[in-house]
Amino acid sequence: MTKANGAQEKARQTVVFLGPVASYTHAAALQRFSKTGYELRPVTTIEDIFAAVADSTADRGVVPFENSTNGIVPATLDLFANASGKYGELEVIGEEYVAVNHCIVGLASGSIPHDAAKPNLSYITTLYSHPQAWGQCTKFLSANLAKAEHVDTSSTSRAAELVSVGKDPVIAAISSALAAKHYKLDVLADSIQNTSNNTTRFLIIRRNSTSSPGKPRSDAGSDNDGTGWKTLISFTVPHTTPGALADCLAVFKAHDLNLTGFHTRPFSSQVDGGEAAWRYIFFAEFGGRRGESSVDDAFQELLGVAESGRWLGSWEEGTAKG
Amino acid sequence: MTKANGAQEKARQTVVFLGPVASYTHAAALQRFSKTGYELRPVTTIEDIFAAVADSTADRGVVPFENSTNGIVPATLDLFANASGKYGELEVIGEEYVAVNHCIVGLASGSIPHDAAKPNLSYITTLYSHPQAWGQCTKFLSANLAKAEHVDTSSTSRAAELVSVGKDPVIAAISSALAAKHYKLDVLADSIQNTSNNTTRFLIIRRNSTSSPGKPRSDAGSDNDGTGWKTLISFTVPHTTPGALADCLAVFKAHDLNLTGFHTRPFSSQVDGGEAAWRYIFFAEFGGRRGESSVDDAFQELLGVAESGRWLGSWEEGTAKG
Repeated sequence: MTKANGAQEKARQTVVFLGPVASYTHAAALQRFSKTGYELRPVTTIEDIFAAVADSTADRGVVPFENSTNGIVPATLDLFANASGKYGELEVIGEEYVAVNHCIVGLASGSIPHDAAKPNLSYITTLYSHPQAWGQCTKFLSANLAKAEHVDTSSTSRAAELVSVGKDPVIAAISSALAAKHYKLDVLADSIQNTSNNTTRFLIIRRNSTSSPGKPRSDAGSDNDGTGWKTLISFTVPHTTPGALADCLAVFKAHDLNLTGFHTRPFSSQVDGGEAAWRYIFFAEFGGRRGESSVDDAFQELLGVAESGRWLGSWEEGTAKG
Repeated sequence: MTKANGAQEKARQTVVFLGPVASYTHAAALQRFSKTGYELRPVTTIEDIFAAVADSTADRGVVPFENSTNGIVPATLDLFANASGKYGELEVIGEEYVAVNHCIVGLASGSIPHDAAKPNLSYITTLYSHPQAWGQCTKFLSANLAKAEHVDTSSTSRAAELVSVGKDPVIAAISSALAAKHYKLDVLADSIQNTSNNTTRFLIIRRNSTSSPGKPRSDAGSDNDGTGWKTLISFTVPHTTPGALADCLAVFKAHDLNLTGFHTRPFSSQVDGGEAAWRYIFFAEFGGRRGESSVDDAFQELLGVAESGRWLGSWEEGTAKG
């Protein structure tokens, strides 16, 4: 009893995510964190998330990292690159996959029987959505809503919000099921996008309590088998040395670590005044876990051939959906 | 005489660039191609450029490739990746660097003496520009135009166009010197961006007459010294083999080829229906020239360890400006 009460009285942890409410980042946050255990708070930019976690305003942050079609999210990688020096103590502790799934959401008209499997949407005259959604749903729209007028909004969740405020069944939105639920709208058609393969991967970040590189975290547990884990590292190479990048990747190969992702961003550190152009920072993601000897050894060897290297975290693999 | 006349009568070659007129891609095209020798034509999207060159509607195309601050242009790399199979015969034959240089452009007021070195712009009430420009010029704007109202436009050249139409000296734009010249406006202040280091690199593309890989082009010349040349190659790796990417980069190192750029994009080829997510295509750019033995040998060896590889071109290095 006492224990349970103590747990309930403990202040809920705060999780910040990229807003608005009912965004895909919100969906990722809900997938990871229960509403009862955590206070989920939307912020306006990705840097707001890093800043809130870095200054301990929030305990966890949820950031979009990579989309299966559009690729990496440059703003997120640039914040991990930490040119400002403000975010060096953040680490990745998890990932969530959310399928981008567009729906027609609106108010099911009482006078028109609705069949979700074979919807007749011809009564809809106006559609709200983010500009990107029109292009992703061309097949469904030309077959079912060819005459509807398109009105651009700043996000798909904002489109759902406008429909909920308008309360007119002939006005609908292309939005997510989460936004429909949040704004008490009906899903009139589901999965209307052209391709079934559009998934975004989100990373969960927190402030790192032990920032010394190469040392396993105390909560890494005694089981050092890295199966089912991923690790993210960033590094820079001496940019005039031929083969420097090959030497860095050879380290991962030597320890039999399989790269699952490899990305490049322009990088100018504050050290050189941020003015040196055409230099890069690399991000390597691979199977394995900090505390595992092959991973720790690889990181130490990488520091020997790279110009600089930084441990960004190890986490249990999420399940790719969609 | 006859020879000269013959040359003059020859139809001018067509060059397509990413519009609108007076865009930075237009500046890159003008830097490369004389107005007298070539017809320069703006198109709406980067794919329009690839399509026009692929179907021989245009002889050359100019595409934005990489910005020193924002990184690679995803749309351009995705077209080079050629998932559609339509652009396999295009090759890169040159590069141009253009410094992003924001100016205050408008109509110099006759009643207010203008001193470009120390401009007094306090009479300006309204500024037009692309949303990105506001953030890039915060220091200058807060010091010199703190009270001016900001109006968003779709591009910086469109902002200049609107000012030229309005003909009101209290309305100005943040735009380029090229746009000022094109729209007959005055440059009231030059280089107003916060950082001096913001340069975009453009690539020149054409339809390749000899598309067989590994074979030097007939116009590569007898001088096979690759000094001052760059080569771009794309490749994919078997995605479940640890070390596959390291093996590919080791090939470049073995031939002492220095990677000057290395980039990743999501890639699903038509072969697997375009539905396999989380696979990648890599783009390696390095010093050297097709026809040079080290470059040709490296490409052949790369084909031995990569899943697929494609020659995208060799060209003489441009000069980085700004």
